Amino acid sequence: MFNEDLDPDTTHSLALDNALDIVALGFDPKLTEIMIDTDRSGLLYPQAIRIAKKITFSTVKATFGFDVSANIGMIFYTSMQAVPAMIESVRAGKNVPCLIPYGIDQDPHFRIARDVLPRLGYLKPASIMSIFIPPLSGVDGKMSSSDPNNAIFVTDSESVVRKKINKYAFSGGRTSVEEHRKLGGNPEIDVSFQWLKIMFEPDDVKLKKIHDDYISGSLLSGEMKSLLIERVNAFLKRHQELRERAKNILPEFLAEH
Amino acid sequence: MFNEDLDPDTTHSLALDNALDIVALGFDPKLTEIMIDTDRSGLLYPQAIRIAKKITFSTVKATFGFDVSANIGMIFYTSMQAVPAMIESVRAGKNVPCLIPYGIDQDPHFRIARDVLPRLGYLKPASIMSIFIPPLSGVDGKMSSSDPNNAIFVTDSESVVRKKINKYAFSGGRTSVEEHRKLGGNPEIDVSFQWLKIMFEPDDVKLKKIHDDYISGSLLSGEMKSLLIERVNAFLKRHQELRERAKNILPEFLAEH
Repeated sequence: MFNEDLDPDTTHSLALDNALDIVALGFDPKLTEIMIDTDRSGLLYPQAIRIAKKITFSTVKATFGFDVSANIGMIFYTSMQAVPAMIESVRAGKNVPCLIPYGIDQDPHFRIARDVLPRLGYLKPASIMSIFIPPLSGVDGKMSSSDPNNAIFVTDSESVVRKKINKYAFSGGRTSVEEHRKLGGNPEIDVSFQWLKIMFEPDDVKLKKIHDDYISGSLLSGEMKSLLIERVNAFLKRHQELRERAKNILPEFLAEH
Repeated sequence: MFNEDLDPDTTHSLALDNALDIVALGFDPKLTEIMIDTDRSGLLYPQAIRIAKKITFSTVKATFGFDVSANIGMIFYTSMQAVPAMIESVRAGKNVPCLIPYGIDQDPHFRIARDVLPRLGYLKPASIMSIFIPPLSGVDGKMSSSDPNNAIFVTDSESVVRKKINKYAFSGGRTSVEEHRKLGGNPEIDVSFQWLKIMFEPDDVKLKKIHDDYISGSLLSGEMKSLLIERVNAFLKRHQELRERAKNILPEFLAEH
């Protein structure tokens, strides 16, 4: 994460916070090493400068649209971001294939990495991209922590989740129950439906029924929201427990493997 | 050191080699901590990115003449170079005045550092600049390890020093002894005299006599060279002994203080 606006301590505690969520998802500490750039820069930076020598300003300018007002940290950052794609090969002393899962916004960094790493003798990393869960305000854009009413946080309580979804989740329903029963809703722009589709209803048959019931008008917006609230709260209840337990085992993940 | 052409292992062993020379000069290990960027990037990099955020490409472009073909490591490098000017303040948790001695070619980095550090709450570093001892080929330029006949290395033997100075040191003398006796030499372009002046004849009265004798023609080029060879070899004999001893205590200098 290269965040312009945050001081190093804040960035670091956010990184630790994110690490707890990763641990809570059930990764095996024996097989999983979490590196925070600034904590592990002793390992990462010497490799980053090897990569940096192969990337010109011209390339990052074309890739990210930087101009001369870009700061030199942003310009350099792709080098650090690319290191995980080869660090296991460096440590093993032989080429180790690498799969990088990332949010789609990180793709430009790894496109550059795929160009550069072979020139240092490493394999191109394979990529798997995640899309963003849309913000509550609508199906475009991404959730931002700076707009808390637009996002559900993994630390939100049951009642906060209920309130946020009921109050802020953009609905594809009609303005009245009567109209909705008659004309049906639009699941494509309904944030609650999209959340179910992307994450909270893994069963495609059930999802299809929700989708069709919404279009037919037999499922109301309030009912769609209730369905989502229930699923999100069930997920978060378990996640928050696992997240608490994660605090004890986090050091195992952060240690050098 | 940000060297385009060297692999990281070579850069690192050169850094250790340079550290031996510093130790050999008599610094007190209790008061001296030597940091090699890539070994200590765990400490330095998190600070470097704080500095990097305050420097635009525009600034390094204007300062170093970079264009879009510059690699992003070179572009970022000023951030790392500036960290020693504030790292003691970071560690002490209060502003610690800092004097940076450096070769004149490093001045642009510290000019930028003097602009940026106050914006992070640190004192401007004070600077003391060293000039280069000229290469054997003439009083312009600087010695380069890639041209061994143009430089005396701290590891050169007595006979190599004698050979290099006799054969390669540019002389301000005349083409024949007769002419030299009659017209005198030119100490300003005489590399051996310049070396005596910059480093190997600390006594200004003696130096003045050598200078005047050369101009008058009573001191010949060969005699000037002999004088330098004797001084350089005396210095190197002692330096090489101290450098050998430095190998034992180098870890004390490299350890965190």
